[in-house]
Amino acid sequence: MDTTVMLGHGSGGSMMKRIIDEVFFEAYAGEELLRGDDAAVLAPPAPGERIAFSTDSFVVSPHFFPGGDIGRLAVCGTVNDVATSGAVPKYLSCGFVLEEGYPIENLKRICASMAEAAAEAGVRLVTGDTKVVNRGHGDGVFINTTGIGFIPAGVSLGGANIRPGDRILVSGTLGDHGITIMSCRESLSFSADVKTDAAPLNHLIAAVLAAAPNTRCFRDPTRGGISSTLNEFASQAQADMVIDQDSVPVKPSVAGACEMLGYDVMQVANEGKMVCVVAADEAEAALAAMRSSRYGADAALIGEVREMKPERGPKALIRTPIGGTRILDMLVGEQLPRIC
Amino acid sequence: MDTTVMLGHGSGGSMMKRIIDEVFFEAYAGEELLRGDDAAVLAPPAPGERIAFSTDSFVVSPHFFPGGDIGRLAVCGTVNDVATSGAVPKYLSCGFVLEEGYPIENLKRICASMAEAAAEAGVRLVTGDTKVVNRGHGDGVFINTTGIGFIPAGVSLGGANIRPGDRILVSGTLGDHGITIMSCRESLSFSADVKTDAAPLNHLIAAVLAAAPNTRCFRDPTRGGISSTLNEFASQAQADMVIDQDSVPVKPSVAGACEMLGYDVMQVANEGKMVCVVAADEAEAALAAMRSSRYGADAALIGEVREMKPERGPKALIRTPIGGTRILDMLVGEQLPRIC
Repeated sequence: MDTTVMLGHGSGGSMMKRIIDEVFFEAYAGEELLRGDDAAVLAPPAPGERIAFSTDSFVVSPHFFPGGDIGRLAVCGTVNDVATSGAVPKYLSCGFVLEEGYPIENLKRICASMAEAAAEAGVRLVTGDTKVVNRGHGDGVFINTTGIGFIPAGVSLGGANIRPGDRILVSGTLGDHGITIMSCRESLSFSADVKTDAAPLNHLIAAVLAAAPNTRCFRDPTRGGISSTLNEFASQAQADMVIDQDSVPVKPSVAGACEMLGYDVMQVANEGKMVCVVAADEAEAALAAMRSSRYGADAALIGEVREMKPERGPKALIRTPIGGTRILDMLVGEQLPRIC
Repeated sequence: MDTTVMLGHGSGGSMMKRIIDEVFFEAYAGEELLRGDDAAVLAPPAPGERIAFSTDSFVVSPHFFPGGDIGRLAVCGTVNDVATSGAVPKYLSCGFVLEEGYPIENLKRICASMAEAAAEAGVRLVTGDTKVVNRGHGDGVFINTTGIGFIPAGVSLGGANIRPGDRILVSGTLGDHGITIMSCRESLSFSADVKTDAAPLNHLIAAVLAAAPNTRCFRDPTRGGISSTLNEFASQAQADMVIDQDSVPVKPSVAGACEMLGYDVMQVANEGKMVCVVAADEAEAALAAMRSSRYGADAALIGEVREMKPERGPKALIRTPIGGTRILDMLVGEQLPRIC
């Protein structure tokens, strides 16, 4: 086997066949992939179900970091985006853009990690593509994953469902992923519990939907952090999203790192968290379902939805511990480039 | 509006919202995209239909070339891969990996070209993602498109259906795309009719299937050219794929360029051609359907499928004008990197 990626691995010829057989099929060969046609043929959803479809490219740097790697991120990120619609994630495609010279050993580790995350989420990698760019025109490996899920009949989630009076939950501590990447990149050393939270949350979402069938919507607060998520929700719902700073779970080590670096943890990226808006009378049930799920032990009720002030428009707001309320701004530019 | 891509355009914050609104929504806003949730929700296929799913990343260099650009390629490539299954292509996702400093003007041209190709193919861009990498770690723009199509009941295409006695058709002249990219890159000047053939071929495929319902399979001879396609078919079918060199349509200008550059046109990439294997008694009907389709005027019957010699295994073979037969080898390494 070759030890580094070469341009010929993207050629459509026999070298490409070799990398497909020895790296990709080795990690996650299924019936559809092995069939060798240009498109995977998939069974349709059951009657009454609809299709959820979402795509994400991953360019995180570095590729390996405490608690995960670009492969785990690439599977979990798309699984979570598909699952936010209430869908059961079923199938993933995977497109690699590799840079000439990248170690095959690293690529194998990444593929093994993808296979592991896919197995945990219960999704199958059914179709793929590999391109190779010349040295100096990429950054080792970029991965696109695109996912298909099936939405059960009767489930219809989305930011537009949010109503004043609804409650806002988060499935765990914020800021872990962004601070992990930052500390790797700058060779800073925080405490040992600073590691990525990257995780597939489809099972947690399914548990919440079973316990709280009137749930309005889910969104994973990735780039831009929970600030972006709450601002998007406010705009979709034309309502204010108001959270209490004291009730937002943050690990002390992450809070300390944010303070030192001058970051607002509300704007730091997460890769294994869900923000969830639920009807007030189902909030306790939803919270209990989260807390009894894997990855949901630190879930918390963090706020509520209010009528917006028409003269000001819809806003995300945070109540500070000293009793004030400030606007939670969307990140303007870039705080931590390439965190996913 | 900003004039170049900045890291903040990939931030998940308000700069990202701006590039989405002003570039992507401007080019191809549909109901699902505008809804603003993380996953597009799509109507399921009709009863009896199955789902076709295919992904492709595009890293072609340069981004603009005679007859097309990376955007047209990105839509047509995935539409064609989905269509090879016999599916009606319906939905595309689109993931951009942009390099800091890339001109927004170019990105707008690319998006307009994607919108035009999507309209011609009858597919909709329903979900997307944008990442930005720092200067020197990408190459302006890479695009992943992933497609969903619905396969009508009763249609089941694939290389494994091929039988000895079947006929091999190609939908037009070979080598146009690869020679176009080569001539741009090396600033060679061939005749004015050397331009990419990039085109959506789903309507051509539908016409062939209507005229020749026992069609075995389609494949678009992209990277690796028709040599790779015929070798893949031979291996899937466990049969020999035998073509006549004289019957393969090649433009004189492309043939001349190949001769000058030392390329085998059978290994040069195409982006708007289909190889099709049909039952012998439907070959004429399939050929007539191709020829009456847009993009199929130069279609030709180029060969047939034969029993393989067990001691030699399945091969792709070409009969030369002087009466010999040689093995049509799969490209080993890379002839023209980054042609798609």
